[in-house]
Amino acid sequence: MSNCIVAQSGGPSAVINATLAGIIKANQLNPLYEHVYGGLNGIEGILHEKFVDLTKMTEHDNNVLRQTPSSALGSCRYKLKRSNVEDFEKVMAIMEKYDISTLFYIGGNDSMDTVASLTQYAKKNNITNRRFIGCPKTIDNDLIIIDHAPGFGSAAKFISTTALQCWQDLHVYPVTRKEVFILETMGRDAGWLAASACLSGIVDVLIVPEIVFEKEVVLNRIRDCIEVKSKCFVVISEGAHYEDGTYVAAGEAKNDLFGHAVLGGAGKALEQMLLDEYVCTRIKVQNLSTAQRCHATEQSETDVTESYRLGMSAHMRSADPSFTGKMVCLKRREDMEEYDVEYVAVDAERVANYVRNFPNEWLLPDYWGVSEEAINYMKPLIQGTPKIIMRDGLPEQTLPYYMTWEGLEE
Amino acid sequence: MSNCIVAQSGGPSAVINATLAGIIKANQLNPLYEHVYGGLNGIEGILHEKFVDLTKMTEHDNNVLRQTPSSALGSCRYKLKRSNVEDFEKVMAIMEKYDISTLFYIGGNDSMDTVASLTQYAKKNNITNRRFIGCPKTIDNDLIIIDHAPGFGSAAKFISTTALQCWQDLHVYPVTRKEVFILETMGRDAGWLAASACLSGIVDVLIVPEIVFEKEVVLNRIRDCIEVKSKCFVVISEGAHYEDGTYVAAGEAKNDLFGHAVLGGAGKALEQMLLDEYVCTRIKVQNLSTAQRCHATEQSETDVTESYRLGMSAHMRSADPSFTGKMVCLKRREDMEEYDVEYVAVDAERVANYVRNFPNEWLLPDYWGVSEEAINYMKPLIQGTPKIIMRDGLPEQTLPYYMTWEGLEE
Repeated sequence: MSNCIVAQSGGPSAVINATLAGIIKANQLNPLYEHVYGGLNGIEGILHEKFVDLTKMTEHDNNVLRQTPSSALGSCRYKLKRSNVEDFEKVMAIMEKYDISTLFYIGGNDSMDTVASLTQYAKKNNITNRRFIGCPKTIDNDLIIIDHAPGFGSAAKFISTTALQCWQDLHVYPVTRKEVFILETMGRDAGWLAASACLSGIVDVLIVPEIVFEKEVVLNRIRDCIEVKSKCFVVISEGAHYEDGTYVAAGEAKNDLFGHAVLGGAGKALEQMLLDEYVCTRIKVQNLSTAQRCHATEQSETDVTESYRLGMSAHMRSADPSFTGKMVCLKRREDMEEYDVEYVAVDAERVANYVRNFPNEWLLPDYWGVSEEAINYMKPLIQGTPKIIMRDGLPEQTLPYYMTWEGLEE
Repeated sequence: MSNCIVAQSGGPSAVINATLAGIIKANQLNPLYEHVYGGLNGIEGILHEKFVDLTKMTEHDNNVLRQTPSSALGSCRYKLKRSNVEDFEKVMAIMEKYDISTLFYIGGNDSMDTVASLTQYAKKNNITNRRFIGCPKTIDNDLIIIDHAPGFGSAAKFISTTALQCWQDLHVYPVTRKEVFILETMGRDAGWLAASACLSGIVDVLIVPEIVFEKEVVLNRIRDCIEVKSKCFVVISEGAHYEDGTYVAAGEAKNDLFGHAVLGGAGKALEQMLLDEYVCTRIKVQNLSTAQRCHATEQSETDVTESYRLGMSAHMRSADPSFTGKMVCLKRREDMEEYDVEYVAVDAERVANYVRNFPNEWLLPDYWGVSEEAINYMKPLIQGTPKIIMRDGLPEQTLPYYMTWEGLEE
C-alpha cells in the first residue's frame, strides 16, 4: 500500500487546519494509504524531506487541530517554476523514495498552480503513479470557480462581529459628540473582507480596492454622515487606492534603513485626511491586522465544516487512480432555497493564477456599501459557532509541527 | 413605593451591561422599587432627566443585554465637582421629582467619587431618603480594594486568546525566517491588560508602564530572542514610557491642524526602532485597540457572572435603608483552594481616585514577563465561555437606549 502526503501553503487562515484534519480522518475511515505524511512548510519541506507521520492521530487531537488557526504544518511562499526542472525531478524522486502516490496541497491560487505544474510534469514524463490534488483556502475569497473559499467565512464572521461590537462602543458617548470609527481589513486587491463587515448592518461608508478612492467624495460622504447622526462608521480595505494605483496607505509609508517601504495603514491615512480637512477631530482606528485571519475561537461553523469535508472529499476521490490535477471545490446548490453546497472537482489549472474581485454590481454607488444580493451571498457563510475545546480558559491548540519534528521513525 | 435609577459611566467594557441586567433582574425577583429607571449618559442624562423605564424587561432581553458590549445606557466623562453645589441640588431635586430613593452608579474610580460626593452632600444636608450605591467596572483592573475589576477578565481573555492565536500565525513560515510580532494593548498607567497576555504562555518580552522603557535593554532582549529561536513575541502597553515620562508612542506623534497631538501606537514606535537599529526587518504589529474592550462574544463566563451578581448584590443590599455611599465589591475567598469570591461592600470614598498598578514584584526582570503568582491570580478570571445568543450569524444586541428614547410614559 502506498502513502500520501499533505502540505499547506500561502497565508494562514482560521480553518486551513480543518482541511488537513479532514484528510487525516478520511484515511482512518478508509485507509487508502498506509501513511498520511505531513510535509513541513509546503513544497519547501517536501523538497527537504521534512515529514511528520499523522496517520494515527487521535480523535481528540484531530478536533484540536481543527480549531487551531494558522498552518500547523507551516507554510511557504516558494513557487515551483516550470523552468526549474530540477525541483520537479526532486519531488518525483522523493515521492518514489517514500512510496508516496498522492500529494494533497492546501492553498490559494499559487498553490493550485503548483498542483497544475506538477501534474503537467508527470504527464509529460509518463509518470502515471503520482497524483496531485489541490484543496482550496484563502480568507481573501479571491479564487475563481469555487462558490467561496474556505477561510473566508470565518474571517467574515470575525470582521462583521467586531464591526458590530465596535459600533456599540462608538455610540457610548452623548449623541452630540461627533465621532468617526475606521475599521481596516486585509485585502490588497479584492474587497471581500471589507465588504463582509456590511453583514453587521452598521457600516456607513465602505472603501474597497475595486472602486477608486476619490478623496473628496469620501470626505463628503463622511461629513454628511456626521452632519445627520454625529457618528460615522467607515470600513476600508488595506488595498484602497487612488485612480493612478497609489495606495491610500502609501501616504503613511516610511523607508527603513534597508530602503524597504514600510506601509502604514489605509485607516491611519484616512484618519489623517479627516483631521487635516477639519472633517472630525474624534477618530478611532481599528486595524484588524493578523487577528482577522487567525481568530479561530470564533470560526464560522459552516466554514470549518466545509473545510473539513473538502479534505475528506479530496481523500475519498483519490481512490480513483485517474484523479489528478484537480482542485476539490464548493458549489452552491441552486435547486433549493436553503443554503447548501455540493462538493465537486475542477481542473486546478483553471483556478491557478486568476483572481476574483468583489463584483462591481454588488457595490452601491458613492461608497454606500453593498447590495442585498451581496448580503444574501455572504450571510450563509458565517452561520454557526463550533464548540471550542478549552483548557485553563484558553483554546487548546496543536503546536506547530516543526517544533516537535524529529524526522520520521525508521 | 419609591423608584431607583441606574446609570453607567467611564469607558465601556464587555460586561458593564451585565451589572445593569443584574440590577433589573433582582428587582423582578424582589420588587423593592416600583420602577427601575435607566439614566442616559451617566450623571449627564440624570441632570437632563433623560430616563428609560427598564422595570419590565423580558428574560430574553435581559440575556441579550448581558452579552451586549459597551454601555447600553451610554456613558459620560462628566464629573460632579464638589464646588458645584448647583449640580448636587439638581440631582436631589430630580430624585425627589421622580421619587427615586436609590441611584446605582456603574463605573470606575471617578464614578465611585461621584457616589461618595453625592453621599456626602446628602449627609451634610440631612437628606436621609436618597441613597447612592456604586458598582465597579473597568477593563484596566486598576481599582483598589476589590480583588479584581469586572470587565478585566473578559478583556484579559480576549487579549490572551488573541496573543496565542497570533503566535500561531507568527510561526507559519520556515523557522529560519526571523520575525517579530508586536501586540499592543490598552493601559496608559497600569499594565494589567498587557500582563494578561502572558496567560497564553507565549510572550517573550513584556513592556508595561510600571517599568521604565530602557531602549537598549529592550532591543537587546529582542535581538537575543531572535538569535535563539528566530521569532520574538512582544507585548507592549500603550502607556509604555521612558524614564522621563515620555511615552514610547510619542515618537509617532503628529499634530493635527487644531494643534492636538495625535499619538501613534507604542507598537508602531517599537517597530520603527527595530527597523532603524537593524534588529529585524520582518515585523508585524497588532494594536488590539477598541476590540479588546468590546469583544463580548468571547466574554469570560466568570467575569460576566460576577458582574451580573454584583448588580444583584447591590440591589439586594439596598433593601437596608442605611446602605449608602458604598461600592459592592469582590473578595477572593482565602479559606479554600478552589477559586471563589464573596460579595462584600466597602465605602466608595475608599476606592475613589486611587489607582492600583500591576505589582512590581510580579514582574520578572528585563521584560521577561510575569511571575507564577501573577498567572495564578489572573487565570481564574478568564475561565468559561457563555453561550451567546446569535441571530443570522451575529450576536444579538441591545440597541443603545438613546436610539429609541422617547421620554418616560406619563
